[in-house]
Amino acid sequence: MTPMYRDEQDLNQDVRAACVRACNTCAEACNACADACLGEPEVADLVRCIRTNLDCADMCATAAEVLDRFRGDHPELVRAVLDACAVVSAVCADETRLNADRYAHCKAAVDACERCAAACAAMLREPVLL
Amino acid sequence: MTPMYRDEQDLNQDVRAACVRACNTCAEACNACADACLGEPEVADLVRCIRTNLDCADMCATAAEVLDRFRGDHPELVRAVLDACAVVSAVCADETRLNADRYAHCKAAVDACERCAAACAAMLREPVLL
Amino acid sequence: MTPMYRDEQDLNQDVRAACVRACNTCAEACNACADACLGEPEVADLVRCIRTNLDCADMCATAAEVLDRFRGDHPELVRAVLDACAVVSAVCADETRLNADRYAHCKAAVDACERCAAACAAMLREPVLL
Amino acid sequence: MTPMYRDEQDLNQDVRAACVRACNTCAEACNACADACLGEPEVADLVRCIRTNLDCADMCATAAEVLDRFRGDHPELVRAVLDACAVVSAVCADETRLNADRYAHCKAAVDACERCAAACAAMLREPVLL
Repeated sequence: MTPMYRDEQDLNQDVRAACVRACNTCAEACNACADACLGEPEVADLVRCIRTNLDCADMCATAAEVLDRFRGDHPELVRAVLDACAVVSAVCADETRLNADRYAHCKAAVDACERCAAACAAMLREPVLL
Repeated sequence: MTPMYRDEQDLNQDVRAACVRACNTCAEACNACADACLGEPEVADLVRCIRTNLDCADMCATAAEVLDRFRGDHPELVRAVLDACAVVSAVCADETRLNADRYAHCKAAVDACERCAAACAAMLREPVLL
Repeated sequence: MTPMYRDEQDLNQDVRAACVRACNTCAEACNACADACLGEPEVADLVRCIRTNLDCADMCATAAEVLDRFRGDHPELVRAVLDACAVVSAVCADETRLNADRYAHCKAAVDACERCAAACAAMLREPVLL
Repeated sequence: MTPMYRDEQDLNQDVRAACVRACNTCAEACNACADACLGEPEVADLVRCIRTNLDCADMCATAAEVLDRFRGDHPELVRAVLDACAVVSAVCADETRLNADRYAHCKAAVDACERCAAACAAMLREPVLL
């Protein structure tokens, strides 16, 4: 029994590529924000931000890899991963926004998280994932 | 503004530790299964198994790290990650079960995936995550 | 005892940023090549390529994160990681080159691996790492 | 051209398995130490420890995966990765030892790092890697 790949007509490859990119960019911005927070004198006030950044970076990296591997099999698996990524990046956007006035790295994380959440939502509207 | 950590009375630490362990064990079993599948003469029949294994390994590793970092903040983030991990490991259990009669590494992955899905479900019943 | 950060005059930030980018790009190209190989009818001939891709993707992702976190402490740690990344990406370039005539994804991996190896070599010539 | 796997008579599988386990255990101990440091009131004094922990966790996870996938091909790749892992875990042992009197999580990291460095050194003495 060789694997069967669904026709990909139900999946706009541009939407997929944009989502992979948004997830990878978010992972990098969150890792960078976590590390920059570690270097701030007020690091003790930024612990929750750091932890949320690390969670978001891990989740986004996983989502990017899963989405990159997606060939039409197990759409429910991909949907679950993207649902989680959308929630995690929205929570991380809210958390990093608390510090975005003071730190450019937090502001950058907010932007990347918001774009990631939006890209996951767009991907979840693709017919193949409904 | 220092971070506030919720009292952890709503979180059974044994349940948490068991879930972290089950996720890490599942990640290792799935990575091992993917690699063993690559070494089988019938690798062309195992491509979907390999891809699902890799997805599951990534998701489980992320879930283990997120759960390890959990201190009571953002329970909705943790819930989303565990929901995804439960779905992914259940799908991977079904996928690897298709080959479990022929390959011991697939059988080992089935077992690890089922235990991981059950551990995530148990963790999701902890009051702190409801 | 608060951590002491060395003056970064011995580290050209452009060289560092280029190396981080080359490592991340290589990780993505190698993961993509591994997955595309899995989808080829001749997957059985591509197993060594897939394994080397996965090794290289892991090593490059680690190198990118380590280099991103580098603030002047423990240069011997960073040097060891970059040495390894340079070797791994050079080996992966050689491996993927074997299939580069047939598969565009292997050719893309060759290019990304070569650029990554060169970027690591350039970074290793920075005074802070000598 | 199907891949050729060397006879593994030059590789003691117990040594390999012990090394994979030591790397995975070290990654978990270092991630746990980094996170516990984030929760300490003196987090500002532990920033270098946290960063080194994160570097070590990434490197050890990569080494474990590379070693798990090793089938005799490209021993120079595996040697480079294990060399790096041995250096990184030794540096991390030294760094975490600075705080080992005060924090049990740092002491646990010291032990895991030392065992990991020793396991990598033992693996590097296997004939297949010379």
